[in-house]
Amino acid sequence: MNFRSDNTAAVAPEILKAMSAVNEGAARAYGADDASIALDAAFGALFEREVRVFTVATGTAANAISLAALTPPWGAVLCHEGAHIACDEGGAPEFYTAGAKLVLMQGAGAKVTPEAVLEAAGRHARGVHSVKPSVLSISQSSERGACYTPSEMAALGEAARAAGLGFHVDGARFAAAVAALGCAPADITWRAGVELLSFGATKNGAMAAEAIICFDPARAEEIERRRKRGGHLYSKGRYVAAQLLAYLEDGLWLKLAGRANGFAQRLGAAAQPWLSVPVETNQVFIKPGAEGLAKLRAAGAEFYDWGPPGGEEARLVVSWDQPEAEIAAMEAALAALA
Amino acid sequence: MNFRSDNTAAVAPEILKAMSAVNEGAARAYGADDASIALDAAFGALFEREVRVFTVATGTAANAISLAALTPPWGAVLCHEGAHIACDEGGAPEFYTAGAKLVLMQGAGAKVTPEAVLEAAGRHARGVHSVKPSVLSISQSSERGACYTPSEMAALGEAARAAGLGFHVDGARFAAAVAALGCAPADITWRAGVELLSFGATKNGAMAAEAIICFDPARAEEIERRRKRGGHLYSKGRYVAAQLLAYLEDGLWLKLAGRANGFAQRLGAAAQPWLSVPVETNQVFIKPGAEGLAKLRAAGAEFYDWGPPGGEEARLVVSWDQPEAEIAAMEAALAALA
Amino acid sequence: MNFRSDNTAAVAPEILKAMSAVNEGAARAYGADDASIALDAAFGALFEREVRVFTVATGTAANAISLAALTPPWGAVLCHEGAHIACDEGGAPEFYTAGAKLVLMQGAGAKVTPEAVLEAAGRHARGVHSVKPSVLSISQSSERGACYTPSEMAALGEAARAAGLGFHVDGARFAAAVAALGCAPADITWRAGVELLSFGATKNGAMAAEAIICFDPARAEEIERRRKRGGHLYSKGRYVAAQLLAYLEDGLWLKLAGRANGFAQRLGAAAQPWLSVPVETNQVFIKPGAEGLAKLRAAGAEFYDWGPPGGEEARLVVSWDQPEAEIAAMEAALAALA
Amino acid sequence: MNFRSDNTAAVAPEILKAMSAVNEGAARAYGADDASIALDAAFGALFEREVRVFTVATGTAANAISLAALTPPWGAVLCHEGAHIACDEGGAPEFYTAGAKLVLMQGAGAKVTPEAVLEAAGRHARGVHSVKPSVLSISQSSERGACYTPSEMAALGEAARAAGLGFHVDGARFAAAVAALGCAPADITWRAGVELLSFGATKNGAMAAEAIICFDPARAEEIERRRKRGGHLYSKGRYVAAQLLAYLEDGLWLKLAGRANGFAQRLGAAAQPWLSVPVETNQVFIKPGAEGLAKLRAAGAEFYDWGPPGGEEARLVVSWDQPEAEIAAMEAALAALA
Repeated sequence: MNFRSDNTAAVAPEILKAMSAVNEGAARAYGADDASIALDAAFGALFEREVRVFTVATGTAANAISLAALTPPWGAVLCHEGAHIACDEGGAPEFYTAGAKLVLMQGAGAKVTPEAVLEAAGRHARGVHSVKPSVLSISQSSERGACYTPSEMAALGEAARAAGLGFHVDGARFAAAVAALGCAPADITWRAGVELLSFGATKNGAMAAEAIICFDPARAEEIERRRKRGGHLYSKGRYVAAQLLAYLEDGLWLKLAGRANGFAQRLGAAAQPWLSVPVETNQVFIKPGAEGLAKLRAAGAEFYDWGPPGGEEARLVVSWDQPEAEIAAMEAALAALA
Repeated sequence: MNFRSDNTAAVAPEILKAMSAVNEGAARAYGADDASIALDAAFGALFEREVRVFTVATGTAANAISLAALTPPWGAVLCHEGAHIACDEGGAPEFYTAGAKLVLMQGAGAKVTPEAVLEAAGRHARGVHSVKPSVLSISQSSERGACYTPSEMAALGEAARAAGLGFHVDGARFAAAVAALGCAPADITWRAGVELLSFGATKNGAMAAEAIICFDPARAEEIERRRKRGGHLYSKGRYVAAQLLAYLEDGLWLKLAGRANGFAQRLGAAAQPWLSVPVETNQVFIKPGAEGLAKLRAAGAEFYDWGPPGGEEARLVVSWDQPEAEIAAMEAALAALA
Repeated sequence: MNFRSDNTAAVAPEILKAMSAVNEGAARAYGADDASIALDAAFGALFEREVRVFTVATGTAANAISLAALTPPWGAVLCHEGAHIACDEGGAPEFYTAGAKLVLMQGAGAKVTPEAVLEAAGRHARGVHSVKPSVLSISQSSERGACYTPSEMAALGEAARAAGLGFHVDGARFAAAVAALGCAPADITWRAGVELLSFGATKNGAMAAEAIICFDPARAEEIERRRKRGGHLYSKGRYVAAQLLAYLEDGLWLKLAGRANGFAQRLGAAAQPWLSVPVETNQVFIKPGAEGLAKLRAAGAEFYDWGPPGGEEARLVVSWDQPEAEIAAMEAALAALA
Repeated sequence: MNFRSDNTAAVAPEILKAMSAVNEGAARAYGADDASIALDAAFGALFEREVRVFTVATGTAANAISLAALTPPWGAVLCHEGAHIACDEGGAPEFYTAGAKLVLMQGAGAKVTPEAVLEAAGRHARGVHSVKPSVLSISQSSERGACYTPSEMAALGEAARAAGLGFHVDGARFAAAVAALGCAPADITWRAGVELLSFGATKNGAMAAEAIICFDPARAEEIERRRKRGGHLYSKGRYVAAQLLAYLEDGLWLKLAGRANGFAQRLGAAAQPWLSVPVETNQVFIKPGAEGLAKLRAAGAEFYDWGPPGGEEARLVVSWDQPEAEIAAMEAALAALA
């Protein structure tokens, strides 16, 4: 029963097959191959508008390059205190932005509110002595598995605009959110004012395929330059492009995400008495007490402790390829706690 | 007849198969999987000593992170004026080093000499007003397809030591050099004083597999931190590790490189009258005149112009999977020039 | 009644005179003049040990260069949430460190405790995914006018050592602290484990004279390089050196600071009912209510609001050259509030 | 006979006096004082148009901040291979630009030509694989004491525009050039397309007073932010402002520069047989042979060797306060060589 993280999962067979399929003879390097060229159109169709797509090796790179395109070095990135960019990227945003500051906000479910954004932006707008609030970055779905609805996204976009901030979304688990919300991808991105999206596929069945979706053509050159400079322009671009094309084809991405979300709901139901936050996507957070955690582990469950030390909280992440048997076993283990 | 670059080639079947082979169930993330863990030992055996191996997405990343570990921001990287790090990486070395300067040297075959290294180091050692010469970086094989012999490497290592410089090798085409020289990898790396090697596999049959080989344990933590910070720590590490393990297994890397080198020798023989430099590895540089180049292209050959504009020089790169028929056809096209 | 800040004050006549005194004929540039050379010995005498002294133009530069010498780019600087380096330097620490992160701690009087240091260091030591706690930076006297006693400093130094942190002191108002504590400068610096001190003179009577006092000879070269690179190596070094020599001569620095501290005590006594924090040095923080603040301003007092918006708090800073009449007038204005 | 450099000279009495004159009571900090506020108008009058003036501590800071405002991190700064920014600033341009590359050009008298600019810009415009030519930076007067005439400046400005480059002038010795050319400052700056000028006063009689003259209002905020971030925003701004106001008043700057230029002409006449380049401003370069240099030194002359080691060339710099007796003595020493 491995619920450590969705990045411990394997690659979906459809995606692996697509990679093999492009492994034929020579192809132009550095994104001039057919598969790479097809990305803009494929994502354009998905997002119902023209977009530019820039593949990179990791979600950290997608986030950091996006942020660097939206803030000057003397700027501030506003984000939740539990955001991946703040806690888990080893300072990559600071590196790529040449030293911008992350200003941390609080909020339930690892989500931020328009009010918090306006307050934080206002607090730091003190001329040259302070950094300059420059971009809002949120995670969709959030680090607590929560989603921003289209109307919440629109309100955040409005707040960002009012405060003169760019708007970036860390979509490492974007599929989980779209599958859960059942909305159009456009509704929670550019229609709400999002300029750059880190579109993640790796956690949901790809091998290593992350893309910066650029809704603002004026920023494309800068992203391209920063990607090259960061060492993220693949020479053999066809293989990462093939992953993404297969990921989108026939809605594979939503099928995989939907399966994981559904399993997480089952776990959530079984863990009802101990849930720390409602289950919205493929992450389940529980507080069954120290003894409860020990029992779950004794039953064979693997997972990470979460939150501050001593908080006795666990995170269970369901992967796209989680065996149904593991879900059933975990349901039983949870039932045994009661 | 595609001689554009070895990065237009496909992935070797042995490598693709190895990637499929690890695609089974869950595996620990971020390099804690079995394949990733096996890298240190596999490369240790290859280099006949303990090493640390850090995979990254591209050769540019391997180079830039290595250089950043060997020079402070106020330092200078000494390299050939035609080096990939100087000409083709979009400023990645400057980015990762936080602004170190590249000091350019000249030399035949895109190789540098100990004398040039000592001169350049001496010229820039003028206290705080100048940058501080900090690292020598060479390409093995070079951007002109030339190799440094073990004794040349030892002399460069000696010069670097004398000048207080670290020593880095850009081995994007390291296999081509080892196959051509027939030496032990150790003889042209740590035995000659090399501290960090960018070990490239992508140009010689891998999909996207580059590694920093660290011969100095004291630098390992810094490289690990810089890699994460650059967004180059793969979450699903098993797939890149599998590529490298398959690449080394049963000498596949030297078999592939040897084949390309051999074909290049055939082209070199056919192009004898127009060779700009001797053919040592898988790159062939020719100057058959503007008309000659036009005829080759008319015959179906694809390749890049090389050198300064108007130089009427061409670069032909042979790939690991170059069809023998293309070599024969090119031989015929070259013969027709005479 | 100007209590805006001590940096609105003029230059002490002794210091201005010393600047004129060195204005004779030619002098070697870039710190090779006699006055500059005398700095190491003068500060060595003050600190009772060998030190290296590096002058810079501003306290922000002194802090940022010091921090850059004590943390790698992937490191974290631990400091109080109200620290000057965190709030008032426009991101200079992030710039000079090439993107280190500031981790904020809380604490009364803008002071931090060893417990808070250990907790913050522990919380961020999560391997490559997080930044690496690297340096503790405190302000002496603090942004709330409080001092760390020698034993508090020793305890902080012990905590820093235990957590593997460097130790930096922002001494923009170091004189105020020493004058208040009556201790040896050594007792609150290197004897407590401090490695680098930003020694400020500008706020206490100099024109523009700040120095990095380096207690660790191994860091001297790096500081020298970073200073040059930041554009802080004066060509005509004699003038800034003359300021600092005059500042130290005959205890001028403590005389000036003592006068300001004494006046602040008078204000503190007059403002007793509304003090937010005890008065320890030359800063006085009061909360006499919105009406009270308005009355003080109506009486001719100039000062800044302090703390979060709506907090109705004021900061009164006494300068070295504050006319005694202004103190008396302010006492009267405060008395009128009661 | 000290001809080491003009930065070994003292401060002009008019300037020192002006600094004392502003030393009266309190003044607003951070450039809000009267003297600082007067700078824009004073320089506006000098340049016959609206300008924004940003004081910094050194010429290195003025250059580096200016360049950072004109190039992205992935850009290239085109400059002469002997430029101060390339050779003598310890990598400050690379630091402030976050890693831009300096592309070096050659040219007589340390001057560059429009042809060289166009060639260098063209050579590096190879898409994302190379850096992006972004700014032309020249020195006026040059590191060889040469001046660009208004028409030469116009031609360079035209080339910069054609190549999509910004245009910066390092005016550490701007006064020497204006005094020699007898032109309006506007003629060799904004009228020729210059966007940012590093206006130096320190080498010509000030204590430490350098200013970025911004002819493009759109760049003002960025410069202000970068200055603060570099630690170059003086808290007590009145003293540096007073220096610059006195420097301009009644043409003091041109009087001082004219005197030094005139003396240099006398040296140039005396050194006629050994001049390496014509004498245009206050620098004289001679090649009287190793024996000649030894004799001059034996006669009491102090100066730096110049150019490549073994070149047996000397640089003589005349300062604003050079005693006439030293000129006469040097004339005699030179005459004795013949």
